[in-house]
Amino acid sequence: MHPDRFRYRADNCSIQRTLDIVGEKWTLLVLREAFYGVRRFADFHQALGCARNLLSARLRTLVAEGILAQEPYQQPGSRVRFEYRLTDKGVELFPALMALMQWGDRWTGDAEGPPVEVRHRDCGRRVHVELRCAEGHGHLSARDTEAIPGSGAKPAA
Amino acid sequence: MHPDRFRYRADNCSIQRTLDIVGEKWTLLVLREAFYGVRRFADFHQALGCARNLLSARLRTLVAEGILAQEPYQQPGSRVRFEYRLTDKGVELFPALMALMQWGDRWTGDAEGPPVEVRHRDCGRRVHVELRCAEGHGHLSARDTEAIPGSGAKPAA
Repeated sequence: MHPDRFRYRADNCSIQRTLDIVGEKWTLLVLREAFYGVRRFADFHQALGCARNLLSARLRTLVAEGILAQEPYQQPGSRVRFEYRLTDKGVELFPALMALMQWGDRWTGDAEGPPVEVRHRDCGRRVHVELRCAEGHGHLSARDTEAIPGSGAKPAA
Repeated sequence: MHPDRFRYRADNCSIQRTLDIVGEKWTLLVLREAFYGVRRFADFHQALGCARNLLSARLRTLVAEGILAQEPYQQPGSRVRFEYRLTDKGVELFPALMALMQWGDRWTGDAEGPPVEVRHRDCGRRVHVELRCAEGHGHLSARDTEAIPGSGAKPAA
C-alpha cells in the first residue's frame, strides 16, 4: 500500500464523483445506446427493455448533469417531442464505456467473438482503449503506473 | 442511429456483462483501493468507511469472479488472515477506473486540481486513457468512431 494512502481524504475522489453521476447500471446502458446513435425515448425503450419510468428518470438525470441535451422535434401530425443528444461532456464518457466493453470482450466474451466492434471512421481499423503517458510510452498496464497525491489532494483530518 | 441497431440482440453486450460483475459503486471503489495497494480487510474498511458486511460481500464477489485472489498471511500472535490481491483479470480493469477518474477530473474536479495523479513508473510522466486504432491513430473521440456488428453479433428474433 502506498504509504500516503491514509494521509489524504478520499471524499474528493474523481472516480467516486463520476460514479455518483453515472455509476448506475441503467444510466451507463442509456449512454451506450446514445453512443450507438439512439436519440428518441421510444428507441431507448425498445433497445433497453427497461421500465418507462426508470428510463425517464435516467434520462432526466443525464440532462440535468449536462451529459445529454434535449432537442425538440416534431413528426407530421404529432406534438413536439424531444430527442436526447450527447453533449461534449457526454461524448467524453466514451472511453469509460469502451474500457468496460474491452474488458467484457476479453473476460466474459463468447467464443464467436465480440458482439460489437468499434472502428476508426477514417481508416476502418479497430479502436481500443490504451493507457499512455505524456512521454508517449504506450500499452501501459496498471503495474507500470504509480498513483500519487495530486495538486488537489486534501490532508485527512 | 445505426440502421443495424435493432437487427441484433443486446443481451450479449460486453458492457452489460462487465457491469453485471463490477457495475456497483462500492465494487468499483473496492477496486480503486486495491489499485492503490490496499490488501487487508481492515485497510479497505478504513479507506472506504462502508459497512463491514457490505465490504465482505463485495470482496466475496470479486474473489468469486477471479478479480481478486485471497492469500493467507499471519501476524505474530494472530490467527491466519487473508489478503486480497488483484489477479491479471483484475489488473485489466484499471483502464476503466482510469477513464472514470479522467472524466471526473475534467468535469467534476476542484479548482485546485486532481486529488490523485497517476504516473508512469519508468519516466514519471502523467498517464492518461486514450482511444487509439490499430493503425496507430491516437487521441480519437467517440465522434471519430463507428460501432458495427462484430463476429459475435446475434440477430434479433
